[in-house]
Amino acid sequence: MKFTIKRSIFVDHLNNVQRAISSRTTIPILTGIKIAVLDSGIILTGSDSTISIEIYISKEDESNQLSIAETGSIVLPSRFLGDIVKKLPEDQLTLEVQDNLQTVIRSGESVFNLNGTAGSEYPTLPEIDADSTYVLPGHLFKRVVNHTIISVSNQQIRPLFTGVHFILADEQLKAVSTDSHRLSQRIVPLTMPEESQGKALEINIPGQTLTELTRLVDDNEDIEMMVTDNQVLFKIDNVYLYSRLLEGNYPDTDRLLSLDYNTKIKVDAQELVHAVERALILSHQGKNNVVKLSLSQEEAILSGHSSEIGYVKERLSLLSFEGDDLEISFNPDYLREALRSFGGQDVVIRFVNPTHSFILTPSEDEDEFNMVQLITPIRTPGN
Amino acid sequence: MKFTIKRSIFVDHLNNVQRAISSRTTIPILTGIKIAVLDSGIILTGSDSTISIEIYISKEDESNQLSIAETGSIVLPSRFLGDIVKKLPEDQLTLEVQDNLQTVIRSGESVFNLNGTAGSEYPTLPEIDADSTYVLPGHLFKRVVNHTIISVSNQQIRPLFTGVHFILADEQLKAVSTDSHRLSQRIVPLTMPEESQGKALEINIPGQTLTELTRLVDDNEDIEMMVTDNQVLFKIDNVYLYSRLLEGNYPDTDRLLSLDYNTKIKVDAQELVHAVERALILSHQGKNNVVKLSLSQEEAILSGHSSEIGYVKERLSLLSFEGDDLEISFNPDYLREALRSFGGQDVVIRFVNPTHSFILTPSEDEDEFNMVQLITPIRTPGN
Repeated sequence: MKFTIKRSIFVDHLNNVQRAISSRTTIPILTGIKIAVLDSGIILTGSDSTISIEIYISKEDESNQLSIAETGSIVLPSRFLGDIVKKLPEDQLTLEVQDNLQTVIRSGESVFNLNGTAGSEYPTLPEIDADSTYVLPGHLFKRVVNHTIISVSNQQIRPLFTGVHFILADEQLKAVSTDSHRLSQRIVPLTMPEESQGKALEINIPGQTLTELTRLVDDNEDIEMMVTDNQVLFKIDNVYLYSRLLEGNYPDTDRLLSLDYNTKIKVDAQELVHAVERALILSHQGKNNVVKLSLSQEEAILSGHSSEIGYVKERLSLLSFEGDDLEISFNPDYLREALRSFGGQDVVIRFVNPTHSFILTPSEDEDEFNMVQLITPIRTPGN
Repeated sequence: MKFTIKRSIFVDHLNNVQRAISSRTTIPILTGIKIAVLDSGIILTGSDSTISIEIYISKEDESNQLSIAETGSIVLPSRFLGDIVKKLPEDQLTLEVQDNLQTVIRSGESVFNLNGTAGSEYPTLPEIDADSTYVLPGHLFKRVVNHTIISVSNQQIRPLFTGVHFILADEQLKAVSTDSHRLSQRIVPLTMPEESQGKALEINIPGQTLTELTRLVDDNEDIEMMVTDNQVLFKIDNVYLYSRLLEGNYPDTDRLLSLDYNTKIKVDAQELVHAVERALILSHQGKNNVVKLSLSQEEAILSGHSSEIGYVKERLSLLSFEGDDLEISFNPDYLREALRSFGGQDVVIRFVNPTHSFILTPSEDEDEFNMVQLITPIRTPGN
């Protein structure tokens, strides 16, 4: 096999494919990138066996400056290939596989000779034979992921919770995540494919897959999603991301969400984030990483302490206060991430009592569960 | 003690003082910053016992917005103090020491209460009672350090070689460093203080001290240097950096430098750096991190290999070649750092034979030792 390509284009695509490759894989060939050269273009593949990314570089697109002399396929060590191509001296490079899988990469006066592995040894990607294709606008998809990714668990002991639960039904997409200390939910409108009218699709997508997708998609691009039993394929232009799905029945989380409250406040999310960020300088040094919020008609105080370093008190200016006085303690990291997920919006927080979880909703849509963050408090000796 | 100060100014000065503070110190009080409040201003001190940095913030300079209500001194935990001050909400902050060394920092609606340590427990800095002050322009000092710091050893087993040897005599400053695999030398003109006319000063300054100094000094500032037996004080505007000197007699390195050669080439330093950076992608994977340079009238080839990954050959375009054919092997990291130290200049490299060290000088000053990098080759089975 042999082809010539514009170097900067090749670098960008290698970087994207490399995102799927883990240096910690136990399967040696998965440390490599597969390059398959067809008559019409080349396909780059990288995989860590949970996620696989495939990119098609077409000969027809002239900006690729791709010319193909001979078809074939090879697997090359991913990290070195990336480093080498990045540093080659000229605008173009030629890659040629010779006898014994020896692969020669030329650019200007540089000649690299890499030991390759036969492309036929690379695992084949799952076939996705789906009935219907869901189309998700990139900007909307990113908002859903950014809102829910914070509550995804990183504890492999309960694999189901390392993903986000997606329900696609009734012209809407509902995404829920929880690590059992907090919960995030986001509901957005969705144009359902014709074949799926009246049906519901429920899947659990690994958090890692969603994070990679938000990196691959631009706001103005669409993501096409195809689902089979245990696999999902996302297509963004010429990039294909395959991912396995997490198995299991996601618990019913709706029962956790309620608009009941005994204390309700409205806050400027940005201002509260800054106060939390100051309070956690000290709480991070404490044994329990906990801060306390004291609310009354007269004043609102956020406080954090570390017995070794000292303590901090922040007087908050609330936009509104309603209901009973309250003292409640919680992990400040959770509140910081929850607040950030609302962007610059004013946020309403509903509390029941010091031992009951509290929920955050945007002020503009405070009586719905379209955009919710729920946080479980921490019981402290005083409560 | 109590004072109010502009927050951004305080943040900048704390950052600079913190440069001297090591998180690995075994002396607890040295994890703190000492703040001493005088009638005329405040002094911040940080130290890791090798280096101490002292910064004077004057009340007279109105941009500091410094007002002093009560003098005194306190030691506060450096990392937290920096984090807190950086995140405070308003443009100004007030710091007040109350009973029991409790220190209150207020800004807007934030109130931090830190446990301090008495300023009197902080070690006193050495007194520098020097006869004469050497003045070094910042831009020149930086060039000297950047050229020589690369050959400073990081092996504590031979402490003398972890510093740069400075000789100040005859209206010039000569700086030499070596880790016994390579050597750097830089000579620049120097205006000697009157009291030192006819005398020579030889000192060994720790590499760490020089690195910190280059970060503290601007190109258009002067550095004032005062030396006593085993200490040196550098003064840059309102910043004082104290450092111990390294003891011992630095070896005579002049005998290592010779203009004799059997092969001499002239190269574009930038171009060769790029070729070396490509070659070392593979050599870094080899057992010995070694590249080979093959020189003849016909061609110049730089090659690197790793038995697992493959090999690379770079054809170099020399600006000139003189003398015998040669094959020589060496650590590519050394050549890369040496070439970079010349900036964009063309460089002359003189070789004697494959087992003898080779030297690099700038093309414009190739017959002098004002700016030299020396590298020892690596013997390979072929040589």
